[in-house]
Amino acid sequence: MPDMRSLLRVGSEGPDVPVDLTAIDPQSTPGLPGRKVTGSDPKLWARGEVERIGAELATQQEMLFAQGTVEPELGRSVLLVLQAMDCGGKDGAVKRVAGAMNPLGLHIKAFGPPTPEERRHDFLWRIRKALPPAGYVGVFNRSHYEDVLVVRVMGLAPESVWRPRYKKINDFERRLVDSGTAVVKVMLHISHDEQRERLLSRLDDPTKQWKFNPDDLEARARWDDYQEAYAEALARCSDAAPWHVLPANRKWYRDWALAHLLRETFADLKLSYPKPEYDVDAQRRRLEADG
Amino acid sequence: MPDMRSLLRVGSEGPDVPVDLTAIDPQSTPGLPGRKVTGSDPKLWARGEVERIGAELATQQEMLFAQGTVEPELGRSVLLVLQAMDCGGKDGAVKRVAGAMNPLGLHIKAFGPPTPEERRHDFLWRIRKALPPAGYVGVFNRSHYEDVLVVRVMGLAPESVWRPRYKKINDFERRLVDSGTAVVKVMLHISHDEQRERLLSRLDDPTKQWKFNPDDLEARARWDDYQEAYAEALARCSDAAPWHVLPANRKWYRDWALAHLLRETFADLKLSYPKPEYDVDAQRRRLEADG
Repeated sequence: MPDMRSLLRVGSEGPDVPVDLTAIDPQSTPGLPGRKVTGSDPKLWARGEVERIGAELATQQEMLFAQGTVEPELGRSVLLVLQAMDCGGKDGAVKRVAGAMNPLGLHIKAFGPPTPEERRHDFLWRIRKALPPAGYVGVFNRSHYEDVLVVRVMGLAPESVWRPRYKKINDFERRLVDSGTAVVKVMLHISHDEQRERLLSRLDDPTKQWKFNPDDLEARARWDDYQEAYAEALARCSDAAPWHVLPANRKWYRDWALAHLLRETFADLKLSYPKPEYDVDAQRRRLEADG
Repeated sequence: MPDMRSLLRVGSEGPDVPVDLTAIDPQSTPGLPGRKVTGSDPKLWARGEVERIGAELATQQEMLFAQGTVEPELGRSVLLVLQAMDCGGKDGAVKRVAGAMNPLGLHIKAFGPPTPEERRHDFLWRIRKALPPAGYVGVFNRSHYEDVLVVRVMGLAPESVWRPRYKKINDFERRLVDSGTAVVKVMLHISHDEQRERLLSRLDDPTKQWKFNPDDLEARARWDDYQEAYAEALARCSDAAPWHVLPANRKWYRDWALAHLLRETFADLKLSYPKPEYDVDAQRRRLEADG
């Protein structure tokens, strides 16, 4: 099994070289084993794998939670940062992959346009407030990267405001990592055509029409500008926590690859259930003596 | 199918008559259909039902979320308040029943002993901060009821402080319900013996020892005082949002009954997917025109 983080990692050419997103095919499936392993239906195979890995993730999460309960001062947590164009599949990925874990240990936060109160603070203020506590797996559905993406593309702030944010983000993430949080940043990469198909299927399905917003078409009209903004952000902010670009046209591959990224992240933490700090036998005797 | 909320509801004899918990057998399974329906293995049957109802809950939750997205001003949300003695099964119930829903739409909060900051505020301050936003399903793992339970039993505040809280809780819950939140309050009711078995099995299992805290035995030593405190709280605070006592010695029954309580709560909301406020055809034409 290849290391998915190495396969999908970007930004290794340095902060001044924008990531070439056009060189990454959204339809591709890097790391996926051949038919010898998957059989004739890779999609079915991947779904089974996601379930199997999901159970492993649930165990890892429980160990993390146990450690956060017993030794909160270690500050150990995991943070998954998800970014994508509209219809990129963030919600689906969270549902399928994070959904395998115990909801008690998840700390999920979706970031929309900042509220008036949030706008009166530094852009990282609301991000800091939403960080996962020790022992939790946090998921950011959009994130502080919107402040160098939509803000840049839609001109919500001048360049003199958003450009210095690359450095602020790197500093912020450096401190986060140093204080015990394992950060996994993933851009779900879909094609312009795939977005159209998904938007159309939202319009066609009465149970999905609520997800469609006419503003989405304004963002779509600025596709190239967004890709350019992503290209620079991914390169400039892969310092303490590198970015991964995950080809996401195929939903089953997306879930499979994301599950692997999380599994590898957990593996680095070398988690185990904490040893009890009390005398187990003495407690057992107390309980057994008690009618 | 009987209405589980009616079956499990308590407090109908008035706020001055403590709920007689000794009259409710923690081993019982009210509302469970007979063998004609369940077959020879009610446990297996109930697990299947929980899965089936879980899928329904997931759909209901999505409709609630859709409504919260499109019409947040309606303030519609669901709040499940779970209370129990240690090992009562709150975590397991959340994992099994809330775990069926999309984690994106869950707002789970576990309340431990108040922090120094929280202690400097009114006891409802941290509760208000943790309420589910419109469109979300909130779960309180412990709650403001601890302020009339552990606080009373362990003497953390004098009666002149905790007794007026019954009224404050009723007023608070009344406003909550009036503003659009469907509140379901459930006490998971286990027996003294069952708690011992579960505590022992925590001590015996290296993957569970972290959940055991020697302090749990202090609380256990005050079992009768806790039951008395529950008896009064359940009776006095079933005003705007009634309490349900769910016999919880059998985990499979607990999950099954809880799934039903949630399903009935959702049914009252008569949810549906919101109709789009934009012109679907016009948006489709815009998209199709766009290469």
